[in-house]
Amino acid sequence: MSKKVTIVGAGLVGSLLAALLGKRGHSVDIFERRPDIRKADISAGKSINMACSTRGWKALDLVGAGDKVREAAIAMNGRMMHGINESLTFQPYGKEGEAIYSISRAGLNQILIDHADQFDNVNFHFNHKCLDLDLDTPSATFEISNGDHKEVTTDLIFGTDGAFSAVRSVMQKLKHFNFSQEYISHDYKELSIDSNDGQFQMDKHALHIWPRGSHMLIALPNPDGSFTCTLFLPYEGGNSFEQLNSETEIRRFFEDKFPDALKLIPNLIELFNENPTSPLVIVRCFPWTYEDKVALIGDASHAIVPFYGQGMNAGFEDVSILDELMTKHGEDWNSLFLEFQATRKPDADAIADLALKNFIEMRDLVGQEWFLKRKKIERALYETFPGKFIPQYSMVSFTNTPYSEAVRIGNQQDLILDRLAETENILELIEQGNFKSFIESNNIIQN
Amino acid sequence: MSKKVTIVGAGLVGSLLAALLGKRGHSVDIFERRPDIRKADISAGKSINMACSTRGWKALDLVGAGDKVREAAIAMNGRMMHGINESLTFQPYGKEGEAIYSISRAGLNQILIDHADQFDNVNFHFNHKCLDLDLDTPSATFEISNGDHKEVTTDLIFGTDGAFSAVRSVMQKLKHFNFSQEYISHDYKELSIDSNDGQFQMDKHALHIWPRGSHMLIALPNPDGSFTCTLFLPYEGGNSFEQLNSETEIRRFFEDKFPDALKLIPNLIELFNENPTSPLVIVRCFPWTYEDKVALIGDASHAIVPFYGQGMNAGFEDVSILDELMTKHGEDWNSLFLEFQATRKPDADAIADLALKNFIEMRDLVGQEWFLKRKKIERALYETFPGKFIPQYSMVSFTNTPYSEAVRIGNQQDLILDRLAETENILELIEQGNFKSFIESNNIIQN
Repeated sequence: MSKKVTIVGAGLVGSLLAALLGKRGHSVDIFERRPDIRKADISAGKSINMACSTRGWKALDLVGAGDKVREAAIAMNGRMMHGINESLTFQPYGKEGEAIYSISRAGLNQILIDHADQFDNVNFHFNHKCLDLDLDTPSATFEISNGDHKEVTTDLIFGTDGAFSAVRSVMQKLKHFNFSQEYISHDYKELSIDSNDGQFQMDKHALHIWPRGSHMLIALPNPDGSFTCTLFLPYEGGNSFEQLNSETEIRRFFEDKFPDALKLIPNLIELFNENPTSPLVIVRCFPWTYEDKVALIGDASHAIVPFYGQGMNAGFEDVSILDELMTKHGEDWNSLFLEFQATRKPDADAIADLALKNFIEMRDLVGQEWFLKRKKIERALYETFPGKFIPQYSMVSFTNTPYSEAVRIGNQQDLILDRLAETENILELIEQGNFKSFIESNNIIQN
Repeated sequence: MSKKVTIVGAGLVGSLLAALLGKRGHSVDIFERRPDIRKADISAGKSINMACSTRGWKALDLVGAGDKVREAAIAMNGRMMHGINESLTFQPYGKEGEAIYSISRAGLNQILIDHADQFDNVNFHFNHKCLDLDLDTPSATFEISNGDHKEVTTDLIFGTDGAFSAVRSVMQKLKHFNFSQEYISHDYKELSIDSNDGQFQMDKHALHIWPRGSHMLIALPNPDGSFTCTLFLPYEGGNSFEQLNSETEIRRFFEDKFPDALKLIPNLIELFNENPTSPLVIVRCFPWTYEDKVALIGDASHAIVPFYGQGMNAGFEDVSILDELMTKHGEDWNSLFLEFQATRKPDADAIADLALKNFIEMRDLVGQEWFLKRKKIERALYETFPGKFIPQYSMVSFTNTPYSEAVRIGNQQDLILDRLAETENILELIEQGNFKSFIESNNIIQN
C-alpha cells in the first residue's frame, strides 16, 4: 500500500531514497533547508569530490540513475603518491579494470534530484528548514523562506539530513537514545588545481595523495580537466590551520611540504583565504528508528571520516538494504525498521573504524617502505588466489560484503601478511614466480 | 571585581555554586525550570537519596552550609548485604568513624537554596525554563510561566542544569564540541520502607544492598525512620522492567529475589505502579567552557551512574576547585576556565569509569566469597599500613585525592590484592597477627 512519506534532507542519500520510494509508488515529499542546487551557481561554491565504488553503483543502478552518473564520473585506478622530493609512486586499488570513481558532490546531487523529480509522486520542497518533529503523529514542522511555519503530517519520516541531523536531535531526547559526536584532530579545506586549457595537469586516472605524516593533501579529477584538492591539517598545535594565518606561512608550508602541488595552484593564497576550514566529525547513535514511523539514514545515523571514500557509499548501501527489506517485510514497517537497524548498525560501526584507520594509512603509511612491501604481498595473494584472498580494501570498495565481515576477514589477513612480510626474499619469490608453490606448500591460504 | 553571573539550574550544584559566588561578592541570578522546591509538597514526589562523602563536605563547609546539612544526614558506616536466604553481612566502608552520609535530594536542595538565598546579591528565579543562549554576548533566554520570553545579558553563564543540560545543547552545536550520551542497560525505580512508628525497621547506619547479579535493590536511611529504596533492573529482556507488568509478576519477583525486603514494603504494588521508571545515562563532553563566558559544571558536563555515590560529590568538588582557581587567577576568567576543564576532565572521566565498575561490584561481586576475601585483605593492609595503603574506595570517598590518581593507585593495588588473594592461609595470617611481618618480609608494600 502506498504510504505518505516525508524525507528531511535532499542531499545525496535523501534524493536517492526519494527516487527509490517514488519508484515503489509511495507519495514522497522531500524537504531541503537549502535552495535548489540545480539553480545555484555551483562553480562558486565548494564542490567536494566523492569516490563512488561498488556499493554506491549498486544503489544508483537500483533506481536507474547509474548510467547518468557514470557519464559525469572519472575512474581512478589507484593512488598516486607524491613524495616530498616530487617523486611519483602508483599503487593500484584493485585488479585490472577495478576503479573507484571521482564525481563532484554538487554534480551528483543535481543528477539525483533530477532523477527523483521525474516521478510524479515525488515532490521537492527547497528552502524548508526542519524545526521540530512530533515522532508519535508523526509530523514535521518546517520554517519556510518568509519565516512562516508549515506542519506536515505523514505516515513515515526519513531523516537524511546529515551529520547534524535535525531529525536526530529530536530523537536524542528519547529515553535510551545513545548518541556521540566526536571530532577528530584534523580539519579540512578545499583547494583546486585548474585545467591547463582543458588538459589535466596530472594523471587523471588516479587519486593523488601527498602523505606527510600528521598532514595530507589529496586531489581528485573532474571531467573539465581540473582537480578538486583537499588539505587535511590539525586544527591546533604544530603545522595546524591555527598557525597558518599569513601569506608567508601558507606559502612556506606548501613549499616545504607540497612543492609540486604548489606549482599547480598559482592562486593558493586566494583559495586558502576564501574557502572555509571545516571540521571532521564521527557520529554514532542508536536506535536509528522510532516505531514504524521514523528512521535515520546515511550520515544522520552514522557519519564517518572521509578517508576510506565510503561515507556516501555506506549511505547509498542503506538505501539498497531498505529496498531489500521493503520486499521482504511488505507492509510491516515496524519489523522492517527493527531488522534494518539491527543488521546495519554493526556494519556502520565497522566502516567508521576502518575509515579512521585508513586516515593513518593515507597520511603516513603509504609513504613507508615496509607498507608498500606489505601491499605488494597482498596484491600477489589476490592475483594468485583470487577466489580465496580478497584484500580488505577490495572487499570494501569492490564487493558488497558487509563491512563488519570485511573487518573480521581483514583481521585474519593481517596475521598472514605480517607473517609473509617477515619471510626472507618474499618479494623475490613473487617476482620469480615461485610465490604460489611457496604459499601452497606452507599451507598459508586455507582451502 | 564583581561580575554579573547567570546560573542556569538551581539543583544541588547550582545552588551551591550560587552560594559560593554570592559569598565572593558577585551579583548572581540563578534560574530554575521547576517551581521553588521549598514550597512544593516533596513528600508526594520522588526523593532520591544522596550519599555525601568527603569531597561533598569540603564544598559544603567552604560555603558554610556543612553543619546545616549534617543535621539532616544519617551516617552509613558500611554496606549491609542481604542474602537471598535473608542472611545479613556487614562490610564497613572505611576505618572506625569513617562513613558516607545519607540525605534526601529534596531536603539537601532546600537547605542549599535557603543558604544561597541569604545573600542579598543572590537572586533565585523559579519557573524559568532556559530556551536558548547566545554564547558570545553572553545572554540567555528563558520562558516564564505565562509563556513570555525573557532575555538576560550577563558577564558569565554557568550551566548547572544537569545531564540533559539546555546550556550544553547550545554548546553542542559548536565546531569541535565532543559529546556523548550513553544509557546503561538498567533503569531504576524508587520504592520505600516506612518507619515502624518512628523506628527504623533495619540497621539505620548502613547502606542496605540486595545484590542479585543482573539486578539489585538498595535502601538508604532517612531521619524520619524510613528508608528510600531504589530498584535497578534491565529495561528489557529477562527479569526486566518491561516484563514486570502485572501485580502477580511484581510480587513473585520480590518473593523470589528480595523476600525480606518484601515484608517491609506492604504497599509494594502501589509504589511500583505509581513511581516512574527512569533511565541511567552517562554524559561526557569537551570542552566544558566557552571563552571567558560560559562554563558547564556538575552533571551538565559529566553525568555518571550512581553506583559509587559520587555524582553529587564530583559536582560539589567542581565548585571547590573553581573556588581555588578563582583565588589563583583573579580576574582572568579565560585562564581560569581553561585550567578548570584541563585539570578536571581526566578526573571526571575517571569517576565515570569507576562508577560503572562499581555497579558490577555492588550488584554481583559483593555477594561472592572471593570478593569478600579480597576485601578482608584490603582492610588488613589499610589497618596495618594506614599511611601506605589506602583502599581505592577510601581514597574516593574519604580523601580529596584526584579521582584519576585514585584510579592509577587502585590499579597498582589490584595487582597486590590479586597476589595476596592467591597466597595460602592469608586469612589465617591476618587473624593470627602475622600479617604485618609477612607483608614486610616479602616486601609487598614499598617503603
